[in-house]
Amino acid sequence: MAAIQQVAVVGGTHGNEFSGIYLIRHYQRHPELLQRQSFHAWTLFANPEAYRANKRYLDADLNRQFRREDLDNPALSNYEQSRAKVIDAVLGPKGNPKVDLVIDLHNTTSNMGPVLILTQAGDFYNQLAAYVKMKMPEAVISCDEDLLPAEDHKLLCTTGRYGVIVEVGPQPQSVLRQDVLEQMHSMTQHILDFADLYNRQALPALPSEVEAYRYLHSIKLPLNEQGERLGMVHSRVQDQDFKAIEPGEPIFKLFDGKELTYQGDTTVYPSFINEAAYYDNNLAMSLNEKITLAVPPVAGH
Amino acid sequence: MAAIQQVAVVGGTHGNEFSGIYLIRHYQRHPELLQRQSFHAWTLFANPEAYRANKRYLDADLNRQFRREDLDNPALSNYEQSRAKVIDAVLGPKGNPKVDLVIDLHNTTSNMGPVLILTQAGDFYNQLAAYVKMKMPEAVISCDEDLLPAEDHKLLCTTGRYGVIVEVGPQPQSVLRQDVLEQMHSMTQHILDFADLYNRQALPALPSEVEAYRYLHSIKLPLNEQGERLGMVHSRVQDQDFKAIEPGEPIFKLFDGKELTYQGDTTVYPSFINEAAYYDNNLAMSLNEKITLAVPPVAGH
Repeated sequence: MAAIQQVAVVGGTHGNEFSGIYLIRHYQRHPELLQRQSFHAWTLFANPEAYRANKRYLDADLNRQFRREDLDNPALSNYEQSRAKVIDAVLGPKGNPKVDLVIDLHNTTSNMGPVLILTQAGDFYNQLAAYVKMKMPEAVISCDEDLLPAEDHKLLCTTGRYGVIVEVGPQPQSVLRQDVLEQMHSMTQHILDFADLYNRQALPALPSEVEAYRYLHSIKLPLNEQGERLGMVHSRVQDQDFKAIEPGEPIFKLFDGKELTYQGDTTVYPSFINEAAYYDNNLAMSLNEKITLAVPPVAGH
Repeated sequence: MAAIQQVAVVGGTHGNEFSGIYLIRHYQRHPELLQRQSFHAWTLFANPEAYRANKRYLDADLNRQFRREDLDNPALSNYEQSRAKVIDAVLGPKGNPKVDLVIDLHNTTSNMGPVLILTQAGDFYNQLAAYVKMKMPEAVISCDEDLLPAEDHKLLCTTGRYGVIVEVGPQPQSVLRQDVLEQMHSMTQHILDFADLYNRQALPALPSEVEAYRYLHSIKLPLNEQGERLGMVHSRVQDQDFKAIEPGEPIFKLFDGKELTYQGDTTVYPSFINEAAYYDNNLAMSLNEKITLAVPPVAGH
């Protein structure tokens, strides 16, 4: 497998998620934290205009603009659609990229802890997940829509040959928490270490499998026919990201006092519970299944 | 003392603080929760335009526009300055108000719990504080700038003869949490009950004093000469609203790894720690002193 030669660490894809913005600023001042023996790494501030406006985005969510077809369509011309084309030219172009590994730094208002989100399948990702989980047992591994071909992915990190998201919460929008910043820094350092050890064929022995959560679908808040909300996430579910929900358990509390239960027929694991940024779509949470990723043995072990 | 005849419950003074907006909507649908035997109560949605924009405000913080001098100045004409004049005409006019008690509902991203903020001094307020604390022991009583004459107060709730703020957190901006909504509802109900019992001279015996926190001043995040942040709230202080800070204890963690300590010479109690809305002013937290409010005896006890 070809080596990782170029690594981009991206912050501020959403302008009000502050940890990544401060972390890349810190790495710019301390390049020794970014560089490793076997690759060149650099930082990118993806949406500084949204940061200046103290908003997630100006016109459209930047992290939904990276389908190859959309990048190739000059009629998609608003601020983030334009900025996406510039970022694709810098990191990509998607399909034949300059950058081998994109690490995109995000925050959530949900109580998810430090999460490594994998957006594609493959041995590299599973070894990375096992390494991060070994070094940082509190990390959660999340697999997001891994059946889509890369060209149809909308996410910024899919512009690189490999791409992952570091997603850490809970942190309110436009706030910087020390604990969240430190968790993001730790996970990013482990990913950089992994890429360097991978290049140098110096990885330690890894466990043969690693637990992960695979995204199934999102569920909406209960609405009436006029689209008005009838209730909210149940307090028993609030903050319980990645904790099992069984069929029949309450998930919503209606304003009239009633409870709605989960109507599926299998155990699911919620994430992005009550995420502020998903609120205008009335999304209540994502549901995941628990899976096991097989980790191929590392050469030499 | 004249009775409380008109009560206004105000939500959405800040457009991204959702609990008050949903609570007044709930009260509109269930007027039996709002009305009491001895007064007329109604609701006001203070800044629906900011809510539609999913922002704290459009042009300026609405809850800083209620100085009498500013209300009388037609040159102060941006959206919130105009809306403040309308609200003053509805609730006030300040100085000779139609409304006897304004209850303004707010959220904070800080871990403050349910807080009753008193903006003026007086027997009515101290009895109210004692009643709320007796019914809801987890409530915190906060005294905000209580030495200013009402006409110089900038807060919306000072348009009424009496005015208080119900401030509940932690809740990220643009999120609705069941636990926070229920705390706001409980405190609001206790305030309405108090006003009714007060009118009917039917208050229960109250303790002779109640613990409160009096605002001293705010402190800023550490900045360099260019105004750039050099650090963040220390993780030992984060989420510890109303917990004592002693002189010499760490309060900031700098990005270079150093710690800054509290340089005052008395014990202080922080609030609004890392509040998202104060971030553009670089405010790190408010500092308070702990005080005791004397509660005058209730007639008949």
